Amino acid sequence: MQRALKQAHLALAADEVPIGAIIVDADGNVIAEAHNRVETDADPSAHAEMLAIREACRIRGDKYLPDCDLYVTLEPCAMCAQAIAFAHLRRIYFGAYDPKGGGVEHGARIFSQPTCHHRPEIYGGIMEQECGALLKDFFATKR
Amino acid sequence: MQRALKQAHLALAADEVPIGAIIVDADGNVIAEAHNRVETDADPSAHAEMLAIREACRIRGDKYLPDCDLYVTLEPCAMCAQAIAFAHLRRIYFGAYDPKGGGVEHGARIFSQPTCHHRPEIYGGIMEQECGALLKDFFATKR
Repeated sequence: MQRALKQAHLALAADEVPIGAIIVDADGNVIAEAHNRVETDADPSAHAEMLAIREACRIRGDKYLPDCDLYVTLEPCAMCAQAIAFAHLRRIYFGAYDPKGGGVEHGARIFSQPTCHHRPEIYGGIMEQECGALLKDFFATKR
Repeated sequence: MQRALKQAHLALAADEVPIGAIIVDADGNVIAEAHNRVETDADPSAHAEMLAIREACRIRGDKYLPDCDLYVTLEPCAMCAQAIAFAHLRRIYFGAYDPKGGGVEHGARIFSQPTCHHRPEIYGGIMEQECGALLKDFFATKR
């Protein structure tokens, strides 16, 4: 999660909402890392998780990542959670909980839906304090 | 929807699940069209709607498409529905309903969630017969 946080800090430096993600294979190798690029790319789908998944799949040449785990600093939204399901990721570790926009423990609760056909192991609240503080500080400066 | 169906036929020709989408601006101009490319790109997020949204945003240089409508041959999944919300699309017209994987009228029902902050106008079942038959025939040949 330290490494995902480093990505979140890169997002912050680019004036993006500070969220970072990495994908790690079964041997512990980081195969993709990304931060939120919605503003930079003018792409509403350019969340850290989506970019990391697309990058890992591109590198592997495979639409499935069943031996891989995702670390992300914020609870994934419904879009990213569904992409995680499609990619067959093994585990998700996320930092802060997101009651306003989350799609794992809040709102759509993607992995609990009968329309979701893969459910990863889920671990939330990892380094929650650091991950959440970065977001709170960012939004405070925007007000 | 005829034009989205044409895209779905292109997907079929590429041995992809035959789903097509287009995005139309307020003057009726098609500004992006795409078909499902999950297998071709080895990208689990490469659904027709996602590719059309990303293309339209790229052309516009804007993460929002509030004057635009999306036509897609199948009910969007939760990933695409959430991306539609993020892009602030005005209206969605979809063809066949998708009880197994849909995220608009089924499962996550993205636009009814308190975590969803934009709800487009939604029109389902447009040319449902043609859109659905294409998918049924495709899966029948795969069995």
